[in-house]
Amino acid sequence: MALIVQKYGGTSVGDVDRIKNVASRVKQSYDAGDRIVVVVSARSGVTNDLIGRAKSLNPNPDEREMDMLLSVGEQETIALTAMALHAIGVPAVSRTGQQAGITTDHFHTRARITSISGGDIREQLDSGKVVILAGFQGQSPEGHVTTLGRGGSDLSAIAIAAALKADLCQICTDVDGVYTADPRVVPDAKKLDEISYEEMLELASSGSKVMQNRAVEFAQKFGVVFEVRSSFNNNPGTIVKEEAASMEDVVVSGVALDKNQAQIVVGELPDRPGTAAKLFNALADAGICVDMIVQGPGTEGRARMTFTVPRDDIYRAEKALKSSFPEENKGKFFDVNEIAKVSVVGVGMRSHSGVAATLFEALADAGINIELVSTSEIKISVGVDPEDADEAARVVHAAFGLGG
Amino acid sequence: MALIVQKYGGTSVGDVDRIKNVASRVKQSYDAGDRIVVVVSARSGVTNDLIGRAKSLNPNPDEREMDMLLSVGEQETIALTAMALHAIGVPAVSRTGQQAGITTDHFHTRARITSISGGDIREQLDSGKVVILAGFQGQSPEGHVTTLGRGGSDLSAIAIAAALKADLCQICTDVDGVYTADPRVVPDAKKLDEISYEEMLELASSGSKVMQNRAVEFAQKFGVVFEVRSSFNNNPGTIVKEEAASMEDVVVSGVALDKNQAQIVVGELPDRPGTAAKLFNALADAGICVDMIVQGPGTEGRARMTFTVPRDDIYRAEKALKSSFPEENKGKFFDVNEIAKVSVVGVGMRSHSGVAATLFEALADAGINIELVSTSEIKISVGVDPEDADEAARVVHAAFGLGG
Repeated sequence: MALIVQKYGGTSVGDVDRIKNVASRVKQSYDAGDRIVVVVSARSGVTNDLIGRAKSLNPNPDEREMDMLLSVGEQETIALTAMALHAIGVPAVSRTGQQAGITTDHFHTRARITSISGGDIREQLDSGKVVILAGFQGQSPEGHVTTLGRGGSDLSAIAIAAALKADLCQICTDVDGVYTADPRVVPDAKKLDEISYEEMLELASSGSKVMQNRAVEFAQKFGVVFEVRSSFNNNPGTIVKEEAASMEDVVVSGVALDKNQAQIVVGELPDRPGTAAKLFNALADAGICVDMIVQGPGTEGRARMTFTVPRDDIYRAEKALKSSFPEENKGKFFDVNEIAKVSVVGVGMRSHSGVAATLFEALADAGINIELVSTSEIKISVGVDPEDADEAARVVHAAFGLGG
Repeated sequence: MALIVQKYGGTSVGDVDRIKNVASRVKQSYDAGDRIVVVVSARSGVTNDLIGRAKSLNPNPDEREMDMLLSVGEQETIALTAMALHAIGVPAVSRTGQQAGITTDHFHTRARITSISGGDIREQLDSGKVVILAGFQGQSPEGHVTTLGRGGSDLSAIAIAAALKADLCQICTDVDGVYTADPRVVPDAKKLDEISYEEMLELASSGSKVMQNRAVEFAQKFGVVFEVRSSFNNNPGTIVKEEAASMEDVVVSGVALDKNQAQIVVGELPDRPGTAAKLFNALADAGICVDMIVQGPGTEGRARMTFTVPRDDIYRAEKALKSSFPEENKGKFFDVNEIAKVSVVGVGMRSHSGVAATLFEALADAGINIELVSTSEIKISVGVDPEDADEAARVVHAAFGLGG
């Protein structure tokens, strides 16, 4: 009789028919004798509707009130899901984040969980009930509703699994699991049976948006083993867990592709100490997340710095650069162009040399130019022309023998 | 510096423009130096949408989950209203029923308030903030969300006004106040400046649905003076308060019309002790609210009993009668027809004779037949053919000199 936490996202509970589908999946586990906590998100679209209404009343809504507003989405879903379970004979009861004793700090719209008492969830499970828990939300010590930020329901699921010492946490979503590459780009991509937390983190930050990093980091910190699997079929998913010895046999686990990057080349800055710091401080102050950074020699006492930012931040990045370097801004001191990032990720990379060589060779053979390179312990990323991005992912995927 | 509770119903906060209108009305009072608690309902339509979704998942949804579901409507409105106030420079903060310490019994969907601590509302008011409170909702002692039943936001407003010892409670709605009759039926109906709790109760139970009786009863019990007024203009409304000596000068305050009644005439029951009790017990067990009752002599040892029920309950009433009197049901032992109820209400009626005579004479002069009569201390009701109902209201309104 296992204790299982199952999380269903907004698409999986998007309308009453999908909520019925979730209920019948929960019933399967319940009938098999498992004890189940179901964590649900708001129905897809609801959160955006609420935000739209808020913004039309106030372009800069108060964050406390935003949390009060947005938390209603999940509260609706927990009640509806409980009703759907009752309709098929499964005893169930809903709990808000507050009722589950999910305490957070007071940073509204991006609160961090500080403790989880679980409220009466254990008693409810012991009495034979399925517990439906609202994801994404908690309560500050002063009793205010808080929310955990985008993707917060994944975090809720992992955290409640940790608090209850659950046997398994299933993140049920609209994909079958974590793949060696995006199957829409690389047709022979394979689903991975298991992957380490670190690989999952690197894949997410490289553009494979299965889950937000905070939830994965939390799982790693508290050793919560979880499975990413489909809400719509019964195929086994991908188990995410601590790195196992056997994982090192696989040098590269997956190829990630992020087409949503821009490259900024700054070529006309004075080549003296402090210039780079001033540059990146200006970007940090503007809240821009810089990803790859390469510095190479410039010409005539000028530094040449290349870095990438999310494409949505181009305008803000340009503004920050111009206001920080008013003198240089009299000329055209930087260039911006769109770029795609292709990354290979794998814990086995640590103990194998030659990964970079295989990667560069595969791209060279396909005639794809590398504009930028960055590396971490278990990842190598290259920046390429967006036109070449899909082809780059396919040839790299093939070069590491990842195909099905 | 008065402490004012203002309640706005679902129509008054039906969309973002109407919420802006509420915010600007609140700002007027705030700028005048008053301390203000605003009680709001769910946006009109939201509650019905939620019920529809629930029913499509479960035709008989659990009442605890129904409360969890329906309370989100008000929670959305309080957050949006606070944001709208911020946008026009008014400091405001929202509070759920739970945060305001509104404790109820555990009868979900129809909970009764047992106590109100007010939470930190006084402190928030003292610090210069407008407090936006979710109507309709409370919390059971065990921490479950409860709701107060239809019209529950009026009750929330009256109750918080009592708890905070507010100087005034304004029920802001889509009518200008309480009228001597429905202006759509009786064109020269006048708005009343004031009315007693008892008259308000009799008017409501006679079909003038300005407010639910529970809220008025609560106000009477705790001596909360309130004003029914429009959300859309600044006309003074109707003050509802304890009966004042001057009110007795007015014999009749208003004429109420309820077209939603049915008359059931039972003519073939054995005329022996216990038959009437059996009849009304059967109806009570079926949850049917019987209004007017008249018993007259029948024929050949048969009793003749006439009573009225809400038209929506006809089917259930017929079912209850047939199953309680299986023997009589072999024949046709009762008749059902639609009926309208016209009532005159007034505290002055107590000390004046001749009200019934004026009423009957006015109807006789108009050639309108009276099918049924019932009386209370401050009300006389007559049942008439629905076709005659509007005309009956007009001639009675005129006969008592209520016109403007």
